Amino acid sequence: MQKHVALDRASAPVSRFTRLRELLQRPDLAFLMEAHSGLSAKIVEEAGFEGIWASGLSMSAALGVRDNNELSWTQVLDMLEYMSDASSLPILVDGDTGYGNFNNFRRFVAKLCDRGIAGVCIEDKIFPKTNSFLGENQPLADIDEFCGKIKAGKDTQSHPDFQIVARVEALIAGRGLEEALKRAHAYADAGADAIVIHSKKSTADEIIEFCREFGDRAPVILIPTKYYRTPTEKLREAGASMIIWANHNLRASIRAMRDTCAALQEHQTLLEVESDVAPLGDVFSLAGSQELEEAEKRYLSATAPRRAIVLAA
Amino acid sequence: MQKHVALDRASAPVSRFTRLRELLQRPDLAFLMEAHSGLSAKIVEEAGFEGIWASGLSMSAALGVRDNNELSWTQVLDMLEYMSDASSLPILVDGDTGYGNFNNFRRFVAKLCDRGIAGVCIEDKIFPKTNSFLGENQPLADIDEFCGKIKAGKDTQSHPDFQIVARVEALIAGRGLEEALKRAHAYADAGADAIVIHSKKSTADEIIEFCREFGDRAPVILIPTKYYRTPTEKLREAGASMIIWANHNLRASIRAMRDTCAALQEHQTLLEVESDVAPLGDVFSLAGSQELEEAEKRYLSATAPRRAIVLAA
Amino acid sequence: MQKHVALDRASAPVSRFTRLRELLQRPDLAFLMEAHSGLSAKIVEEAGFEGIWASGLSMSAALGVRDNNELSWTQVLDMLEYMSDASSLPILVDGDTGYGNFNNFRRFVAKLCDRGIAGVCIEDKIFPKTNSFLGENQPLADIDEFCGKIKAGKDTQSHPDFQIVARVEALIAGRGLEEALKRAHAYADAGADAIVIHSKKSTADEIIEFCREFGDRAPVILIPTKYYRTPTEKLREAGASMIIWANHNLRASIRAMRDTCAALQEHQTLLEVESDVAPLGDVFSLAGSQELEEAEKRYLSATAPRRAIVLAA
Amino acid sequence: MQKHVALDRASAPVSRFTRLRELLQRPDLAFLMEAHSGLSAKIVEEAGFEGIWASGLSMSAALGVRDNNELSWTQVLDMLEYMSDASSLPILVDGDTGYGNFNNFRRFVAKLCDRGIAGVCIEDKIFPKTNSFLGENQPLADIDEFCGKIKAGKDTQSHPDFQIVARVEALIAGRGLEEALKRAHAYADAGADAIVIHSKKSTADEIIEFCREFGDRAPVILIPTKYYRTPTEKLREAGASMIIWANHNLRASIRAMRDTCAALQEHQTLLEVESDVAPLGDVFSLAGSQELEEAEKRYLSATAPRRAIVLAA
Repeated sequence: MQKHVALDRASAPVSRFTRLRELLQRPDLAFLMEAHSGLSAKIVEEAGFEGIWASGLSMSAALGVRDNNELSWTQVLDMLEYMSDASSLPILVDGDTGYGNFNNFRRFVAKLCDRGIAGVCIEDKIFPKTNSFLGENQPLADIDEFCGKIKAGKDTQSHPDFQIVARVEALIAGRGLEEALKRAHAYADAGADAIVIHSKKSTADEIIEFCREFGDRAPVILIPTKYYRTPTEKLREAGASMIIWANHNLRASIRAMRDTCAALQEHQTLLEVESDVAPLGDVFSLAGSQELEEAEKRYLSATAPRRAIVLAA
Repeated sequence: MQKHVALDRASAPVSRFTRLRELLQRPDLAFLMEAHSGLSAKIVEEAGFEGIWASGLSMSAALGVRDNNELSWTQVLDMLEYMSDASSLPILVDGDTGYGNFNNFRRFVAKLCDRGIAGVCIEDKIFPKTNSFLGENQPLADIDEFCGKIKAGKDTQSHPDFQIVARVEALIAGRGLEEALKRAHAYADAGADAIVIHSKKSTADEIIEFCREFGDRAPVILIPTKYYRTPTEKLREAGASMIIWANHNLRASIRAMRDTCAALQEHQTLLEVESDVAPLGDVFSLAGSQELEEAEKRYLSATAPRRAIVLAA
Repeated sequence: MQKHVALDRASAPVSRFTRLRELLQRPDLAFLMEAHSGLSAKIVEEAGFEGIWASGLSMSAALGVRDNNELSWTQVLDMLEYMSDASSLPILVDGDTGYGNFNNFRRFVAKLCDRGIAGVCIEDKIFPKTNSFLGENQPLADIDEFCGKIKAGKDTQSHPDFQIVARVEALIAGRGLEEALKRAHAYADAGADAIVIHSKKSTADEIIEFCREFGDRAPVILIPTKYYRTPTEKLREAGASMIIWANHNLRASIRAMRDTCAALQEHQTLLEVESDVAPLGDVFSLAGSQELEEAEKRYLSATAPRRAIVLAA
Repeated sequence: MQKHVALDRASAPVSRFTRLRELLQRPDLAFLMEAHSGLSAKIVEEAGFEGIWASGLSMSAALGVRDNNELSWTQVLDMLEYMSDASSLPILVDGDTGYGNFNNFRRFVAKLCDRGIAGVCIEDKIFPKTNSFLGENQPLADIDEFCGKIKAGKDTQSHPDFQIVARVEALIAGRGLEEALKRAHAYADAGADAIVIHSKKSTADEIIEFCREFGDRAPVILIPTKYYRTPTEKLREAGASMIIWANHNLRASIRAMRDTCAALQEHQTLLEVESDVAPLGDVFSLAGSQELEEAEKRYLSATAPRRAIVLAA
């Protein structure tokens, strides 16, 4: 497979690959906000976030399927391309288990670089995956096999700052702190640029313990979906490098669409919802209609067929 | 091109094609709610609506592009397939101008039938289209050419009840009621199963006048996005067969995602948003996780590789 | 996922699903010829064959990738749709290991039925697969897990005559006749409509022995790529129901394109190749240009924009 | 839309964009050979050609559809990506009329650059197009509109050496030499990097006359499909910069697949064809199986799940 090194000129002077790397390595805590579509990617950027988490759960749910690799890796790639085109932010994509073995993951990494996606996170479970919040004691990947996958990805990336993040599932799988640390070190040794330590507990105790033990061996990313009550300050103090708000744009849109559908179904008139939804004009401005209007002046001559057709019709 | 007549068994005894036809032909006013993704299609069904409007504006905006045929027709088709799989409701898709001439439209119709989409609406403008609410006096298609397109579609559909709806843009283009009526009659003569009469005025006067003149020559569909203040009762009395709430799920989700992003960006903690978004469990139940759990019991043996791998790891 | 029962009207009165079933169950030996594209599917039909083998090796090689699940299952599906549209023959697709577990296979089966593909063959190996002619002693799937996959596929198919064929790799994996027979019986018990017994030996001895032992428990399909010297009569006598010429269109095209490229590269003139390649007119007739010409007369009016534009230009 | 400047590292030190530009601008005549798939792209490179012509006719025919924009632009893009991945050669793609207006063309150009395609040729006809060798006096695009399209493409390309070639159809449309020259100059003024002058006559007289008059205003590309009897020396003397062998890999493969199918259908044994087709091993070597075998040693540990599964099975 030829490699098309992807450099995003639009975000010069610093590429999106480099910006994601910097977010992970700088002393200040960084935040990524979930997006699952071109539109949500735009909204994340508009709000001032520095980066996007392309959640596998959210992308699956938005398309109407389950978070069990029901989407093919190219279907995910298609959605990522919309997101990459829609926003200039660095995107870290939730790559599940890498869609197979090291070879499938190599292909995914090569295509991510082509599409301008700044990094990928893979988790040490088995393809096809099950969402980590479902079931109990899910099987984990063999450590050596997972390290081979990380190495293969690092050898494949076409931009030097593309980030490969390893997600440790040992705590969720009930395998304990020792196992989690052993895996995190092995993955960092294999070349992982950062570690996600994941938990489904409602408190952050085990997460904070992990951070303390792991120290600054590599940047640590946290996803406090379940331990959302823990003050961010405590996670910062524990040494986290990055926090991901993992699925809240999706969940916000579910709530809003349900409310809107219910109101319209009950009252059968738009008067009930008009003031609760974004103005129609915002749909056009978010999509960038202004740019096209200007481009039409630049590139569409007065004698172009569109007008010719009007006269002829 | 071979035709794979699509009959949706899941919705037996009456196919989705037939149900859309019945919604249009029955005396009672019918309502379609906009969806733009598998998820929104599920939410529309959950709310009790009888059918879905797959809006071109909404699908484009959701993917981050403009409503100017920036999506290829196969990209639209891919999204429609997600929607068709996610919901058992009949879907009427906004087919813009049919993506080219009669031949491109034939291909689109054939694929819609394969994917279980119940009907398509095409508008009498020129490819590539501009959203009807933008610009002034957009050029209209030649009447004969547009009638040829309708005929070609009707000759192509693989299910007898697939619906082809013709959208008359004459009023919006400033061509007046006479032109609108002339076109509506021509399209019905060419085989259109229903007529959309579209307007961008904030009152329904010209729409109601059209309905009165057109009578029951064919079912008439209204899209009161701009004249949303008009009571639905008046549209019912005017003789409308169907009303489309055209983009309000999209606009609801924009508002909600903006609010959520703003709160997280400002407060840097999930505590601020957790109670305003759908519970995480709803994401799983909307996606149908329960069905998979049961299927795993049925189809995954206790000695299957997943377990083998656990032991071996 | 909604099911869109696919019935191909064009091939009335007997659907392609039913025709594949009949090819497998009739007393007479049936032959499938490999295709890997819409074009090759047309050529197979034109030559008088009764069915098509959509080879995974050939489709991968034609697209330039390896037969190791480098294509996603939706990329394969896209190519199958071109083939299904291009030919009215029943198509049996090489579904590798089913692209994951029973759930991935269910999704694939549902989409195959939608696309009018008449059947799928899955092999009892591990995802991602390696081509059976490469390497030694490839690992085999767990029998129970593979049977669960077959059952899940049979429960999912939306046409009653869709065929699920189980390919036994035990002989190639060096596991012997006993293992092969045990697996073939288990797969038939689980609902497989036919069995492929595969071999990479240059003689048919082990294949014939299998056929004798297996008897008429289920139709048996042979792929004599490696034992091509064995007279077809011997395979017929052994009781085979179907023979697949598995990759010879692809290999024929490789040879021909290499010869043509070499001649043009050496002589730098088309005179050297014109008489050795199909006439240009055949490209148009294979594509069906005649039908479009007639359709243009039917659906394109004399006043249509195309002509209008000429005058205006 | 974000731009991901595509630079193909694999072909360092000179990118494919730059190499196509050099082929067009150097004094020596250059030759492009047609390909329509990943496989044919590999064969073109293997034969020693310096570049690839991704023919619209061939890609359409290979997929089983007509050369009338029956493929969406993203379906074409998908095939181009396979070709770009399969070969390190610069690829010039036949972009038909640019798939709509200047805006559709902009999107296509942006995506071509992302995929590492070195250049695009657009023709001055109307969307949807008809193959130039079919019908008579096809309508031509408005000159100003076509120039706007060229400008929009040049303003969009993310690599400075991406080539936009304008194909003049005036001679084929029966509009004469004057019109052809007028258009060629206008297109060069608008920024076209080269001109294709196309003809469907069996002699090269009008082509040579054009070349003489046009001089070296811009590089001229010839496609001698119909005037194949003209010695290449005469085209070189006329001042052509590049010659395209436009569809001969496709036509070679049609002939070969027909012969192979006929032989197998008649004789029902592989013995008849085995020596006339490429050896099976060549399929694997063309696909690059060797590289994967080596990568497995590097990235797959001895304790990886594949082996674990063997033991567990």
